[in-house]
Amino acid sequence: MRVGFLGLGTVGQAVVRLLHEERERLAANGLALEPVRALVRDTARPRAVPAALELTADPARVLDAPDIDLVVEVMGGVEPATSYMLRALRAGRPVVTANKEAVAHRGKDLLEVAAEAGVPLRFEASVAGAIPIVRALKESLAGDRVTEIAGIVNGTSNYVLGLMEEGQDLEAAVRMARERGYAEPDPTRDLDGSDAACKLAILASIAFSARVRPEQVGTCGIQMVSREDLRWGREMGYRLKLLALARRTEAGIEAHVRPTFLPVSHPLAGVGGVTNALLVRGERCGDLVFQGPGAGGDATATAVVGDLLEIARRRLVPGAGALGAGAAEASATLGARVREGPYCTCRDQVEVVPPHRCVTAAYLHLEVADRPGVLAQVAGCLAAHQVSIAEALQKARGEGPVPVLFITHPSPWGALEAAVKEIAGLPVVARVAGLMAVLGR
Amino acid sequence: MRVGFLGLGTVGQAVVRLLHEERERLAANGLALEPVRALVRDTARPRAVPAALELTADPARVLDAPDIDLVVEVMGGVEPATSYMLRALRAGRPVVTANKEAVAHRGKDLLEVAAEAGVPLRFEASVAGAIPIVRALKESLAGDRVTEIAGIVNGTSNYVLGLMEEGQDLEAAVRMARERGYAEPDPTRDLDGSDAACKLAILASIAFSARVRPEQVGTCGIQMVSREDLRWGREMGYRLKLLALARRTEAGIEAHVRPTFLPVSHPLAGVGGVTNALLVRGERCGDLVFQGPGAGGDATATAVVGDLLEIARRRLVPGAGALGAGAAEASATLGARVREGPYCTCRDQVEVVPPHRCVTAAYLHLEVADRPGVLAQVAGCLAAHQVSIAEALQKARGEGPVPVLFITHPSPWGALEAAVKEIAGLPVVARVAGLMAVLGR
Repeated sequence: MRVGFLGLGTVGQAVVRLLHEERERLAANGLALEPVRALVRDTARPRAVPAALELTADPARVLDAPDIDLVVEVMGGVEPATSYMLRALRAGRPVVTANKEAVAHRGKDLLEVAAEAGVPLRFEASVAGAIPIVRALKESLAGDRVTEIAGIVNGTSNYVLGLMEEGQDLEAAVRMARERGYAEPDPTRDLDGSDAACKLAILASIAFSARVRPEQVGTCGIQMVSREDLRWGREMGYRLKLLALARRTEAGIEAHVRPTFLPVSHPLAGVGGVTNALLVRGERCGDLVFQGPGAGGDATATAVVGDLLEIARRRLVPGAGALGAGAAEASATLGARVREGPYCTCRDQVEVVPPHRCVTAAYLHLEVADRPGVLAQVAGCLAAHQVSIAEALQKARGEGPVPVLFITHPSPWGALEAAVKEIAGLPVVARVAGLMAVLGR
Repeated sequence: MRVGFLGLGTVGQAVVRLLHEERERLAANGLALEPVRALVRDTARPRAVPAALELTADPARVLDAPDIDLVVEVMGGVEPATSYMLRALRAGRPVVTANKEAVAHRGKDLLEVAAEAGVPLRFEASVAGAIPIVRALKESLAGDRVTEIAGIVNGTSNYVLGLMEEGQDLEAAVRMARERGYAEPDPTRDLDGSDAACKLAILASIAFSARVRPEQVGTCGIQMVSREDLRWGREMGYRLKLLALARRTEAGIEAHVRPTFLPVSHPLAGVGGVTNALLVRGERCGDLVFQGPGAGGDATATAVVGDLLEIARRRLVPGAGALGAGAAEASATLGARVREGPYCTCRDQVEVVPPHRCVTAAYLHLEVADRPGVLAQVAGCLAAHQVSIAEALQKARGEGPVPVLFITHPSPWGALEAAVKEIAGLPVVARVAGLMAVLGR
């Protein structure tokens, strides 16, 4: 099968290299996958790929060329990637993508067109790199009911939090991550949680068989996190992670991405560096944990190639050889083009709970005047919004404002925010330094 | 699709219950799976399954009955399970099995017959319960090269080791595990490592695309483990696990199951209770860790049903509807019976290294006479077999024989055993109390 590429960045080049390095083994298994052509912005730019791969700036050379059997989309971004994929699918070409934005925002359209065309669309690489979580949810756990999925799905922010735990402030940590190649020149989407929100939307949609869109995911990044929060959390037996969490509740699907304190005993609490990890809780399968490199060209390339090989294997199926001439003829065609049924599993109508109604325990970090009655005033604001306090901790008196920490019982996020807004307005409160979620209380 | 069961124990009943409880959701997705009949030894024995399920003691009623489309084998043991499965496959009936013994010992025959018949055989549930490791290795990582797979794949022994870490001796720990339902009446195959060896043989065969048979796996259980070993290991920064380890080396595939000390920092060191966990190391995908319940009816049932649904989904494929009459006719038949290509991936000819040539660092626990020159004599025996010592530790003098611990540098297991045999013969050595593998030195 001749493969055309849309984009040829780190992941694309790693896929080309993998197919090149493994071509003999794959061919020996009847799975010959030949990178033929790649759409790139600048064909002159040097890339570490075999000379045989033709570079072109013309999308049609990949999307409409008769010598392309299968399309790999690794250009990223919603557009023009989505339009290109739709065009390839309509032309009957299977598509494998690593593009989380396109799948999260336009997955419905992509899967519908793929189903109409009876052509496979696969996107294992769009979430958590080499971790085979999409296939696990779609196939292995298809018989069970997932009740919760929690994940560390953004390596950059996890790496930055790790450096902050070692004493760096946010700015320095981000700079170091960039220098070490663990953060992009502009890591905004990693730090503000929107990258994780895309991945959670994809995972929740599969896990709960109902469409969850990124804009429905309550999202907050790590920009407000301070070293003090990390240190105090540790004192209280927590580790802070940028957690992507979705669960099925009475009210519907709750989904949010927030800096979240996990008890040190939580299976995701110890996940460090750029590693990704996912906890899938099912009614029957119990707690399954998947952990591995969530990014990097080679790791992500294994996921892309896993999808390519699934498609290639299905084309190998000998068809209905036993069924006589008419069928034999058909089966030849089938061999060349196996049709597939709908791959989309978002069939259930389940409401997605608006972020302000998602219930979570919270950690609140204030800087207040060191004066009698302050705690009472703050506690009053919380009580006024039915937020009850599980733990309060006034830190040792220092110069100027005094830090005060609260851990609340589970409350709707909206109530927490409203209370915090009011608290921020109190004359005795110098600053609201942090509001984060707390898991497992 | 009408499902016939071979065996109806804990797992079988859980599968029937799952299909019953989820029948509406599955039917809505076009995946109607109806448990029709089950082969059992004693049809009179009460079971928690719907009355609609017919119980029979006659294999033919499941294997040859025209009203069975698909067979689930959950009876366990190599025979008669394997003969039954071969018969079902030859008759064109897809088979899903949770039977590690049959797959480990007769997988080659089963997969060959399945390929000849063009009928799917699936066995996700045969290893590590709900953890989707078979699918991950066969599909998701098919493009990468796995270099090592290490796992805790026997929950009973892991639970027993946990109790021993808490101070129980082996006998008491096994009794408690049995009382709490975490060990079978006769847990021999769990404790002596042969259960884990079957699972490792299956995993290594897939991971390295080469057949590894259980009898080729160097196997040692936990019966020799003492509380002291666990305590001293901890002092030295290790946790003891019954580890199933297979790696690709210059010499070939090394595969063994042994009590193994893992550095506390190892991703598998913290896995407690009956949980199973697997570390897969790939050239490109890096280290992937999978963790979850390795046994239990409901957890294992999700794996069985995941396989059932994969087969059912493929029968849903609309066939080549667009290819005209001859094809349409064929596709109708295809819809009813999708043929599949070879599922076996053991294509490479790779030698399996005999256990005595497998290289590992080791922990040696001796009880010796408290007399000068003893260490020198023991060290002499080790040196005579080219086993070099990384660490030696003489424990505080007590009554009678004194415990002495050695940690060696990596050496062939045969050399270690030969040296230990000689050491056991030394007059100054009261007892060889323990010989175990050590990872990560």
